[in-house]
Amino acid sequence: MQILNTRVLSGCMKTLVRSLNHSSRAMAKSKFEYVRQFETDDTCLRNCYIVVRLDGRNFHKFSEKHNFAKPNDNRALGLMTRSAQSVMEELEDVVIAYGQSDEFSFVFKRTSTWFKRRASKLMTHVASQFSSSYVFYWKEYFAEQPLLYPPGFDGRVVLYPSNRNLRDYLSWRQADCHVNNLYNTSFWTLIQKGGLTTIQAEERLKGTLAADKNEILFSDFGINYNNEPMLLRKGTTLIWEKRDEAVTKMVKLPNEEERKEVTVTRGRKRVCPHHCDVIGDQFWEEHPDILERDDC
Amino acid sequence: MQILNTRVLSGCMKTLVRSLNHSSRAMAKSKFEYVRQFETDDTCLRNCYIVVRLDGRNFHKFSEKHNFAKPNDNRALGLMTRSAQSVMEELEDVVIAYGQSDEFSFVFKRTSTWFKRRASKLMTHVASQFSSSYVFYWKEYFAEQPLLYPPGFDGRVVLYPSNRNLRDYLSWRQADCHVNNLYNTSFWTLIQKGGLTTIQAEERLKGTLAADKNEILFSDFGINYNNEPMLLRKGTTLIWEKRDEAVTKMVKLPNEEERKEVTVTRGRKRVCPHHCDVIGDQFWEEHPDILERDDC
Amino acid sequence: MQILNTRVLSGCMKTLVRSLNHSSRAMAKSKFEYVRQFETDDTCLRNCYIVVRLDGRNFHKFSEKHNFAKPNDNRALGLMTRSAQSVMEELEDVVIAYGQSDEFSFVFKRTSTWFKRRASKLMTHVASQFSSSYVFYWKEYFAEQPLLYPPGFDGRVVLYPSNRNLRDYLSWRQADCHVNNLYNTSFWTLIQKGGLTTIQAEERLKGTLAADKNEILFSDFGINYNNEPMLLRKGTTLIWEKRDEAVTKMVKLPNEEERKEVTVTRGRKRVCPHHCDVIGDQFWEEHPDILERDDC
Amino acid sequence: MQILNTRVLSGCMKTLVRSLNHSSRAMAKSKFEYVRQFETDDTCLRNCYIVVRLDGRNFHKFSEKHNFAKPNDNRALGLMTRSAQSVMEELEDVVIAYGQSDEFSFVFKRTSTWFKRRASKLMTHVASQFSSSYVFYWKEYFAEQPLLYPPGFDGRVVLYPSNRNLRDYLSWRQADCHVNNLYNTSFWTLIQKGGLTTIQAEERLKGTLAADKNEILFSDFGINYNNEPMLLRKGTTLIWEKRDEAVTKMVKLPNEEERKEVTVTRGRKRVCPHHCDVIGDQFWEEHPDILERDDC
Repeated sequence: MQILNTRVLSGCMKTLVRSLNHSSRAMAKSKFEYVRQFETDDTCLRNCYIVVRLDGRNFHKFSEKHNFAKPNDNRALGLMTRSAQSVMEELEDVVIAYGQSDEFSFVFKRTSTWFKRRASKLMTHVASQFSSSYVFYWKEYFAEQPLLYPPGFDGRVVLYPSNRNLRDYLSWRQADCHVNNLYNTSFWTLIQKGGLTTIQAEERLKGTLAADKNEILFSDFGINYNNEPMLLRKGTTLIWEKRDEAVTKMVKLPNEEERKEVTVTRGRKRVCPHHCDVIGDQFWEEHPDILERDDC
Repeated sequence: MQILNTRVLSGCMKTLVRSLNHSSRAMAKSKFEYVRQFETDDTCLRNCYIVVRLDGRNFHKFSEKHNFAKPNDNRALGLMTRSAQSVMEELEDVVIAYGQSDEFSFVFKRTSTWFKRRASKLMTHVASQFSSSYVFYWKEYFAEQPLLYPPGFDGRVVLYPSNRNLRDYLSWRQADCHVNNLYNTSFWTLIQKGGLTTIQAEERLKGTLAADKNEILFSDFGINYNNEPMLLRKGTTLIWEKRDEAVTKMVKLPNEEERKEVTVTRGRKRVCPHHCDVIGDQFWEEHPDILERDDC
Repeated sequence: MQILNTRVLSGCMKTLVRSLNHSSRAMAKSKFEYVRQFETDDTCLRNCYIVVRLDGRNFHKFSEKHNFAKPNDNRALGLMTRSAQSVMEELEDVVIAYGQSDEFSFVFKRTSTWFKRRASKLMTHVASQFSSSYVFYWKEYFAEQPLLYPPGFDGRVVLYPSNRNLRDYLSWRQADCHVNNLYNTSFWTLIQKGGLTTIQAEERLKGTLAADKNEILFSDFGINYNNEPMLLRKGTTLIWEKRDEAVTKMVKLPNEEERKEVTVTRGRKRVCPHHCDVIGDQFWEEHPDILERDDC
Repeated sequence: MQILNTRVLSGCMKTLVRSLNHSSRAMAKSKFEYVRQFETDDTCLRNCYIVVRLDGRNFHKFSEKHNFAKPNDNRALGLMTRSAQSVMEELEDVVIAYGQSDEFSFVFKRTSTWFKRRASKLMTHVASQFSSSYVFYWKEYFAEQPLLYPPGFDGRVVLYPSNRNLRDYLSWRQADCHVNNLYNTSFWTLIQKGGLTTIQAEERLKGTLAADKNEILFSDFGINYNNEPMLLRKGTTLIWEKRDEAVTKMVKLPNEEERKEVTVTRGRKRVCPHHCDVIGDQFWEEHPDILERDDC
């Protein structure tokens, strides 16, 4: 008894037909086509989370030229989040994204086969979609402030084999958000409310620990850092959530002649922002679907 | 006699000082920082040309939604070129770029140390700068046609060790431009002037060689393909050129009291477009500075 | 309060001292030293099992020239296992190795930092140690059969992010062992006991399933395949095991003048061979220390 | 007119036939076969020289255990060269090899397609063949000195895009040979002839330049370093050379009854050792066939 592998057979036929269709075209440039062999395969290791992180290029200068508020500009943060949403809607295998300041990280699910897991394709598409969205949605966030020149972002790909590693990656970014925001809040408060110069503020903060900065804010300026907005202290986490939506439909009811407008509730997946802690377990327990199991 | 390596010493001191400044911050997130070790080094091999090629994502749909003229839309080609110029102005080590249809290739010089030759950084920055520029300059080219959504591009990196390999790469893309444009010109002429349906046009062209298509265009429609615009037949090549520019300056002349406006001629490097053949030797002989020598 | 990073400081000093010692030497060849920059980093992704698999080069010819018994030569299998043991004793981070026929796989623990996880170093060292051991121990297994020429092995590295993936890798190799050994046993039985030619035997087995081959062996030759030696059906699995060893020591007892010979029992880790199933759970439950946890 | 791509067709048929033969076997282990997808492609960039360098593992200890003469042991150097020859005879695309001390570099020609240019296969096969040869030929060089344990080597792959880069690589290794040999010759002369301890010798040489060491050797011990054997000062370069060989054949001459023994001269390629300078141009001018042209 012989088993025929029909998948192989059908694959062969497709190759053959394609070859017939293209042979005439292909020959014209065949002399140079050897250069394709110089392309290298950069497939990401299977069963690992694929993280693409983008960082703004020269955003110090960019933020000054565009009059970003200090230490945080809510318009700019909103635009970052809007652009990240655009990326997620375009690349559905991104299960979670995390952003703060001028950076955003996108996490593809372990089993993703998007772009055949080719690192270069994944990161360039993310960088491209994010950047075009940033310009596209600029006006929605910056209204009267015109965009003076097209901004740039660079990116990288990192793989994480386990849920623990991935969570630690996100924790690392959120801890970075905390450290930077506490510093920047203290720094700009010393300047804006304390009347210090930038050099004096830098001197004042040199060598201080978190507790010291909290103390400065509280004692000198009556600011309880823990009451600062979650958006600034925790950054922005984007995940897919099923939300009920009221949709209006024209329906023909059984015993009636004409079609009637009816409001229906439909569950639809949407990208939703959170500004909560992602270092502890609570967030992950509340959203058990983000991570896939380790033991597969 | 002992030679003291002062560069090493000074490097040490810098590291030390930096470590002192950041130690308090670093500790707060040190628990998670191990995740940085998962990043891999993707430095491009030295002494090779680095080519980043971008391709439009779903540009078939994009061109339809935005009413691109068929087979070629000069506004769209102009915008591609403008965006590529923006990339070259931002990343000065790009010595030549070549574009056609919805793709553009950027060639970094062999000896470039931009981004320490890290492939991921190079390609994401190119993809990002190109995409943000595409949206930023859209209105300059599409005037009354609004941009409906942010477009995406994906990219890849390929290395070429020799001038011959690099030239063959560019020849391959230009041959592809020729093959596609001849096909598309024939296809759309059959439809637009010949009244065929898309299926009939496809049938008519199936299996035809270049000579056959030239013949169809000439005999049936009186079109000499060789008279079609160079832009369409050859694509767009961008290179840096030194051009004299008249600059107006306020100058205080020796024997005069007041400053006077003077016009000065200055040589300045600019990105200039060409629509010529890059397969033969002429272009390269006319621009000997683009390529570096092989024997180094 | 300022925390001084003494580790960085001490690293600096070391670099400095090293630089002083070597500066005179280094200069002599400094002109060419830039070629080191062409080396690329091939560090294996962290938290993944690193598998190095070796395969004999042209072992069909090698086995004929050295009169290997068909379908299996116990001397050859013994020598493979001895060489693999030598590898494990030299590279202690190998937690399990599996071999069959002319191949052997070595699994480095997830957290190994051997050779800084550099793939090239790991696989060449394994290939080298295995090959030199194969020649070194040849006589112990082949006695009167001289080694005619130095054999070659080639290798590769594969990473596995989860315990499931790693176990499936080993299962894949053991399933391969089973499939090949059943085929070879049937093939050579048809020839050696059934008097068929090799071409006839091949014909007879073409398209047969496992059940068919079992039936041929049993009906025609009275061989119950399941009674064949485990070594042949399951291959060889090597793991580290703590075994009690009686060691003779010279000890000076409290109330005695002279030192006396005493036998002490000591637990010592040794590489031990198993010829059991590694596809099911039992082996892994009996040896819980081989795999590290997924959730780290 | 339609051109049929027969190569594609024939490839299809082969795949099909292979699939029919193996389908029954394949299924048995198909459940686990997904693990093959974790293998990554490590093809070496085309049109680059591929260099595999091997280094002895713990050869300091190895040389002591096996009583290597200091500073150089001719038996050990001979065995290294013999093993390298064995590698070149097995992997014919190696066009040149260079060795000194316990290291050897093998250069594959730019256009080699050996192992489809897969880095892992190339370096492991070289490491394996070298190591098994080292043990196999040990007795020919070390006669009465038994080999106590199987030695290990590790390796790496480096790519060089141009002839200049490759020559600089070899120059780097030969400069390293010179620097080390001059140091070791001085060091051991101070000990063996000067009666210094190792610590005293180290002190005496600390910070000395090449000229200083030459002076010590000449003034204190009457040794002109330039008269030391080329083998030690220049290392060993292996290349393929066509050499005439006298071969004895049995021939039946026209007018004679019986066959007669005749000596024929035949050109045959052989691996030949040189101990000359490879930094300057002379060697390369005398052997113009080693390097391929850069401009291809």
